[in-house]
Amino acid sequence: MKDRICELECNIDDMTAEELAFAAERLMAEGAKDVTMTPVQMKKGRPATLLTVMCSDEEAEKERFVRLIFKYTTTIGIRELISERYILDRSEETLDTAYGKVRCKKVSGYGVERSKPEYEDLARIAAERGISIADARELVLGSKK
Amino acid sequence: MKDRICELECNIDDMTAEELAFAAERLMAEGAKDVTMTPVQMKKGRPATLLTVMCSDEEAEKERFVRLIFKYTTTIGIRELISERYILDRSEETLDTAYGKVRCKKVSGYGVERSKPEYEDLARIAAERGISIADARELVLGSKK
Amino acid sequence: MKDRICELECNIDDMTAEELAFAAERLMAEGAKDVTMTPVQMKKGRPATLLTVMCSDEEAEKERFVRLIFKYTTTIGIRELISERYILDRSEETLDTAYGKVRCKKVSGYGVERSKPEYEDLARIAAERGISIADARELVLGSKK
Amino acid sequence: MKDRICELECNIDDMTAEELAFAAERLMAEGAKDVTMTPVQMKKGRPATLLTVMCSDEEAEKERFVRLIFKYTTTIGIRELISERYILDRSEETLDTAYGKVRCKKVSGYGVERSKPEYEDLARIAAERGISIADARELVLGSKK
Amino acid sequence: MKDRICELECNIDDMTAEELAFAAERLMAEGAKDVTMTPVQMKKGRPATLLTVMCSDEEAEKERFVRLIFKYTTTIGIRELISERYILDRSEETLDTAYGKVRCKKVSGYGVERSKPEYEDLARIAAERGISIADARELVLGSKK
Amino acid sequence: MKDRICELECNIDDMTAEELAFAAERLMAEGAKDVTMTPVQMKKGRPATLLTVMCSDEEAEKERFVRLIFKYTTTIGIRELISERYILDRSEETLDTAYGKVRCKKVSGYGVERSKPEYEDLARIAAERGISIADARELVLGSKK
Repeated sequence: MKDRICELECNIDDMTAEELAFAAERLMAEGAKDVTMTPVQMKKGRPATLLTVMCSDEEAEKERFVRLIFKYTTTIGIRELISERYILDRSEETLDTAYGKVRCKKVSGYGVERSKPEYEDLARIAAERGISIADARELVLGSKK
Repeated sequence: MKDRICELECNIDDMTAEELAFAAERLMAEGAKDVTMTPVQMKKGRPATLLTVMCSDEEAEKERFVRLIFKYTTTIGIRELISERYILDRSEETLDTAYGKVRCKKVSGYGVERSKPEYEDLARIAAERGISIADARELVLGSKK
Repeated sequence: MKDRICELECNIDDMTAEELAFAAERLMAEGAKDVTMTPVQMKKGRPATLLTVMCSDEEAEKERFVRLIFKYTTTIGIRELISERYILDRSEETLDTAYGKVRCKKVSGYGVERSKPEYEDLARIAAERGISIADARELVLGSKK
Repeated sequence: MKDRICELECNIDDMTAEELAFAAERLMAEGAKDVTMTPVQMKKGRPATLLTVMCSDEEAEKERFVRLIFKYTTTIGIRELISERYILDRSEETLDTAYGKVRCKKVSGYGVERSKPEYEDLARIAAERGISIADARELVLGSKK
Repeated sequence: MKDRICELECNIDDMTAEELAFAAERLMAEGAKDVTMTPVQMKKGRPATLLTVMCSDEEAEKERFVRLIFKYTTTIGIRELISERYILDRSEETLDTAYGKVRCKKVSGYGVERSKPEYEDLARIAAERGISIADARELVLGSKK
Repeated sequence: MKDRICELECNIDDMTAEELAFAAERLMAEGAKDVTMTPVQMKKGRPATLLTVMCSDEEAEKERFVRLIFKYTTTIGIRELISERYILDRSEETLDTAYGKVRCKKVSGYGVERSKPEYEDLARIAAERGISIADARELVLGSKK
């Protein structure tokens, strides 16, 4: 299956790490599909950050995120890249396990078929029991069968 | 002023980013003074992570964090580095501002004297008003005078 | 306001850091709008560098920078990406401060309005007085009012 | 000379470094023109990896690599970017040196003309003699004249 | 269990990525316990590399690796750090699986007990069948029971 | 030959890239042997920077740099690491070339003997002629013989 996605990008050399992390969090809270920060080196030896925000390619959404990025960061220019995107079909099922209900994301298409427990559910179990995510995954998948 | 600090380090190439972020979060929740992840490249072209956990250099604390790192990560070896540390004297004052009480961290020593509003308080104000951390800082410092 | 910008990109695994820094400096001196270097890992475990050069999307400018990149680097292929770019309106004002004239960049549009002292002017003041950029900014903004 | 190239990209936060390195290796073995991994920071503090696979922009090739990326990684979405590419003309000559035959890649165009010994041949000589690549290059270029 | 380990470190800004990868490979082949490359930014805006080589803290071994690093790299100074190291007890068992013999590394101590199939064996199975490491691990662990 | 060196380190998440680059420049100007910035990820998803300053291990020098780091950065704690260092013997010779005098750094010891033209001299020649550092090196070494 194919769709289109918009990447909004800017290089930032005049925000602190604290401020960047807050901006990234707000952009996620506003519904960005993803927010990525890449360490880059800019002119004059500056250890800066490339901020990438993914959102829908609809005009209204793009405009909304452009405004949010200008609001939460110090950038004065935002590049827009529209990409085609190949995506797998997704569905969700819920497993009944000894550790409570665990959602599982199932994906298929392009010759693959996979399923994995949702991170949030594993994190809840791991935090409750003081174990790692990997151990929580093993518990859940073990108790499923 | 000088004290001593312990850095516990390990290179990790068999955990996912999700699992690493969870481990880092748990180690902070357990009282680590700091947890840092550095992108490194390991043998066989692996884009791995150096995990660094800072804690007190007391035997019991070190042992406690060694056990926690073994529990939350997949590492089989943890290096221990004890460093001398130069630290500024710290005190806290609370500002009464138009935006509520804001704690300020004051530091001094080695020829410097500085103060800055606590990130957590700025973040609260910024989130409430839908503004950036930098704007919240400006509001707070402006309303203080 | 929107315009268009050209990004010229290449992955480099056969130049030294010294040579790369020199190339970046020359490209800036030749009028690139920005030059960024991103640490990447290439095939065969190589800790390489992605060089990104931004310039105008006019044919003559692009061609000029393509030639300069081939001259100053060892790459044998340069990718060209044209992006739409959202930019704020910019103007400059000059502040008369106790520390001399300080240019201020003012930007507005997309719901924001901001102004900040030029880095170069702050750096001059900071270097003259042996203080940090943050301290120079505070001096300048304090003396402005 | 210009051609077109396809970049397939995905952000990965649920594979280990071991698994990523294996995937990159397989994609190279399947004929990718290049595979790059960039350390990035994703949402929720995850130290993740941006995987970029370059291939021809022919439909069949793109589809083949989309399927391979879905097979060897855990991603559920792959972005496709088509770029124009400026490339130098390439030819190969073989040098007869005191250390055996050494292929040389010659490139020209856009005002430059360069030649360099193939890495693989230098690596063979360097490994045989227990010397560095730089020393092997010097030996080969010295014995050529 | 505790032992001691030696880390030999140098910052490199005058080798190419190709040369660095070759050096890292040779140092592993010579018996280094680990070789890590970290992207750093050095003076004058150079996107350089921190090379870290781990070896035993015996005098002869350290001296041998110091000589090898000077031979394979361009550095003119190598820092030596001796760390205490906490390590788990390790043993190996061999699983008989439908996919051939697979070695498993078992580790225990400091309150944990874990086991995992050797990467090399999973990589062999994955390469033979054209599947990912994760899929190979699942096959092996599934067929074990 | 062995000597000792001091590394002063701090993690910084509340300075901008501009401010960090200025601090690094001042520390070099004050005589630091090296200043390195490493991109790291700190608690709460912050894309921060590890600043490392190398200086002599004499008490007065260390104290001087501790004061300078506290002055030019926002850190409130600086870790001190003293390492043994293996160093090559260094001497300088001056080559008379068709492009003017070029200093050459010669190093020897631990089984190696190498020489290379000083970067600053190559950079001057490269800038004068509008060529790359690699081309300048080739000119200089060719004209030497």
